[in-house]
Amino acid sequence: MCDVSFSETPVLGSEDQTPKKRFSEVQKERREQAQRTVLIHCPSKISEKKFLKYLSQHGPIHNHFFYESFGLYAVVEFCQKESVASLQSVTRTPGLGTEAAIPFRSRCFSLKLRSPSGQPSEPARVPCNSQSPPSSKKLFELLCYAESIDDQLDTLLKASQLTEENTRLRYLTCSLIEDVAGAYFPDCAVRPFGSSVNSFGKLGCDLDMFLDLDEIGKFSAHKTSGNFLMEFQVKNVPSERIATQKILSVIGECLDQFGPGCVGVQKILNARCPLVRFSHQASGFQCDLTTNNRIALKSSELLYIYGALDSRVRALVFSVRCWARAHSLTSSIPGAWITNFSLTMMVIFFLQRRSPPILPTLDYLENLADAEDKCIIEGHNCTFICDLNRIKPSENTETLELLLKEFFEYFGNFAFNKNSINIRQGREQNKPESSPLHIQNPFETSLNISKNVTQSQLQKFVDLARESAWILHQQDKDRPSPSGNQPWGLATLLLPSVTNSLSLAKKKRKKPASERIKNLLESIKSSGAEGPTDTNGKRTVSTQA
Amino acid sequence: MCDVSFSETPVLGSEDQTPKKRFSEVQKERREQAQRTVLIHCPSKISEKKFLKYLSQHGPIHNHFFYESFGLYAVVEFCQKESVASLQSVTRTPGLGTEAAIPFRSRCFSLKLRSPSGQPSEPARVPCNSQSPPSSKKLFELLCYAESIDDQLDTLLKASQLTEENTRLRYLTCSLIEDVAGAYFPDCAVRPFGSSVNSFGKLGCDLDMFLDLDEIGKFSAHKTSGNFLMEFQVKNVPSERIATQKILSVIGECLDQFGPGCVGVQKILNARCPLVRFSHQASGFQCDLTTNNRIALKSSELLYIYGALDSRVRALVFSVRCWARAHSLTSSIPGAWITNFSLTMMVIFFLQRRSPPILPTLDYLENLADAEDKCIIEGHNCTFICDLNRIKPSENTETLELLLKEFFEYFGNFAFNKNSINIRQGREQNKPESSPLHIQNPFETSLNISKNVTQSQLQKFVDLARESAWILHQQDKDRPSPSGNQPWGLATLLLPSVTNSLSLAKKKRKKPASERIKNLLESIKSSGAEGPTDTNGKRTVSTQA
Repeated sequence: MCDVSFSETPVLGSEDQTPKKRFSEVQKERREQAQRTVLIHCPSKISEKKFLKYLSQHGPIHNHFFYESFGLYAVVEFCQKESVASLQSVTRTPGLGTEAAIPFRSRCFSLKLRSPSGQPSEPARVPCNSQSPPSSKKLFELLCYAESIDDQLDTLLKASQLTEENTRLRYLTCSLIEDVAGAYFPDCAVRPFGSSVNSFGKLGCDLDMFLDLDEIGKFSAHKTSGNFLMEFQVKNVPSERIATQKILSVIGECLDQFGPGCVGVQKILNARCPLVRFSHQASGFQCDLTTNNRIALKSSELLYIYGALDSRVRALVFSVRCWARAHSLTSSIPGAWITNFSLTMMVIFFLQRRSPPILPTLDYLENLADAEDKCIIEGHNCTFICDLNRIKPSENTETLELLLKEFFEYFGNFAFNKNSINIRQGREQNKPESSPLHIQNPFETSLNISKNVTQSQLQKFVDLARESAWILHQQDKDRPSPSGNQPWGLATLLLPSVTNSLSLAKKKRKKPASERIKNLLESIKSSGAEGPTDTNGKRTVSTQA
Repeated sequence: MCDVSFSETPVLGSEDQTPKKRFSEVQKERREQAQRTVLIHCPSKISEKKFLKYLSQHGPIHNHFFYESFGLYAVVEFCQKESVASLQSVTRTPGLGTEAAIPFRSRCFSLKLRSPSGQPSEPARVPCNSQSPPSSKKLFELLCYAESIDDQLDTLLKASQLTEENTRLRYLTCSLIEDVAGAYFPDCAVRPFGSSVNSFGKLGCDLDMFLDLDEIGKFSAHKTSGNFLMEFQVKNVPSERIATQKILSVIGECLDQFGPGCVGVQKILNARCPLVRFSHQASGFQCDLTTNNRIALKSSELLYIYGALDSRVRALVFSVRCWARAHSLTSSIPGAWITNFSLTMMVIFFLQRRSPPILPTLDYLENLADAEDKCIIEGHNCTFICDLNRIKPSENTETLELLLKEFFEYFGNFAFNKNSINIRQGREQNKPESSPLHIQNPFETSLNISKNVTQSQLQKFVDLARESAWILHQQDKDRPSPSGNQPWGLATLLLPSVTNSLSLAKKKRKKPASERIKNLLESIKSSGAEGPTDTNGKRTVSTQA
């Protein structure tokens, strides 16, 4: 519909052979796209054609879609940023009825019909794009009808991953918050990070964003004249942390009092990383806004690279996370549970350990980096190659089915008591501290990202991994023909009854789990299934029990 | 130095014969002037010439002055608004030292010397403009050296009234606050009202301002197309009052956390008229920010008209207020004291009662109004003529000396127990309620602007007025030759000892005050001094006692 200077960002995971975009390019394009975009609450009955014709008065439209949240919403991307201002200029602040309005001008609009009778009787309902993940029931059905375990993993990925529209909506939401913050900090950016951008996000996941003030004051620092130096008069506070708290506090206040559709605003300013949490009603996102989170953005970039290097990575991560969630190994509440981030690190580590490796180590990515990739944040070395196209693809051709089975086997037998997981070197290391689960933070290397996990939670993970390996092995020997009537393959692993019946069975038998697993492992070995190997190809099945 | 489209606003009270500007014209010009103006904190030793040369890089300078507050400050008015943006574009956010800065970009700057040694040794100190009223001692001296009582009243006015520079600084301060509020409410205005603009303000008086959101949403209300109507999505709250509270709360928060030099921010949101009070350190003003105060702005305009109609009005009001303050009849603390506004109303009323009247009644000003002057605010009729040049000047030629004496006599004998003061009709009216002092609010006519005054405070006022009338009368009979050594005329009335010695004398004599006053009035009458008359010229000395 109009000429824009960048091509559509391809949805990750599509198997095209076009050069892959750098993370920073994607971020920049998405941000600019979001700045040309508006969010419009529409009457439930609306003619899409008339709607687009009406909006086109302000300039050509590049893209649009509808979705349902609290009412019908449209996301409309104009070709030019100027169209947004044009639309704003003819938009009125709602008249005061019995209530009073806070007259805030944003890019959130509400379209009214002047006379409902003027509309053609019963226009067709506009097609709505879903912003929610499929229900467990729906997902289960999809898996049962898949043709192979490989197909099951792909199906799960496609059904759960962020859609193009949901990604747009995430960047738009950040851009709307940027407008609020930008009123006071004109050069600021509100950047999404974490699951929204790292390619491992699931539909419905929280939207993490941070207020980037780093660009402010960077420019013009040298433009001085003669003996004079002009500075803005500003408020000084005793520490960077207090500055952060104050800025977040005011922005939180603004969102709470003026921000259209921002509800349930909580200021959590005394946390290690102070944040403002709120619900963005129109988009349906639960948002966390922090400041100064460049290291988290760099982590997101690293995951983006790992996710983009090989199509098996995201499929395996999505399945492992889905499996963990089905068995309550993860939770949306903070606590002793394993996090999705930890699970992702475990998958990446596992894929680094294959022979030949499917993923390179972080040290390898650092070695490939050139001068412009150099990045030190708060003293931490976050350097790695940013150009995906310069990383050689893996020669490993293992199937997803095999990888899933081996993942469960590998971690069902991992020496968690002795060893640390470390994607930087891609090999097991001695644990530097006594936490039950030790996964090294890839950039802040003295930190353990799974310090919160208790021994019992870890044991639950190990037990379930072993059981799942065993189930897949059993099915292998006695493979049922895939059919929509019977759960099979990955679907079996997601059944809640697996654990329950297992616990029940355990209690009945009164045998220690270790003994059962020993038997299990013996049976696997004797059947000749390929066990996990280290990078030297040496078999490393350790019978931890 | 540059061509600007409007002439300098003449300082009120200057006796030129150029057409007088409407209040709204002055407000508009001052606001635009302020928007082209910046506030710069300067090193204490600076070469004015180099300073101006440096700033001229950003465009021609129309006006500038220096003053001392917490350090040396310069107010610099550019000819074009664009110069401000140009200056901002080369200004940096201060680097972080041990402290952290909130990186807020405003029109408050801080000029640094890159190397102090680069400055010529000991540049001359720049001339500083005072923003404070003269000390009591200084004022007293000025009065003693004056040539006549008329000259004393003029001297007091000239020494105490707002200067051109102080007025600029007030509009600039409002404009800086407007920038903060304007970040969220792009079409808002922060307008000064009260003593800063009504021509009765004294150097050092508080700066009252209000956030005017009325312009928002007024425009573009009709620009709709076809059957669609676009509105901003906004937060709705149950009442206009709650909207006001929320808006003030956030702006208060912003001023507190980001606003350069805004200190001691207090949110007083549960008051009848919710407000945010703060000190603006750089300008030295104590500021009160409210919203929706159009009626107060209209009151300011009415006083501006009364002040501009006849040069004696402001001189008399300033002297009466100074006298009241010297005797603690007024106070900066809210309480049972008479307010400056009430005193001003009493002077206006008194001047309406002269024969021929010096000031017209408000009803008369309303009758002169034409269609464009019509103004109804919240159901109150605030209509009066806005074009000063259409009001016929008074034919009364009484001297300030006479008017001061008669003022004290008039109110020394006013039947406060029965009558109300009412500038709308310009004649005494029966009190509608039992407050000791009743002065009708000129627009909200059912309100008494001096409801707070107690009987004992009123009695103190009456006693002091009588004493002052008596002192002036005594001096009349036995006039000392004006000399700098001896207090005389108005100076005598300001001596704190007048009241004290009087109270002391009262106690000694044990005679009721009423008796003394009776004797006093007898003596005045017999000496043939002209007593107050009603508009028909009938002598109206009432011996209230």
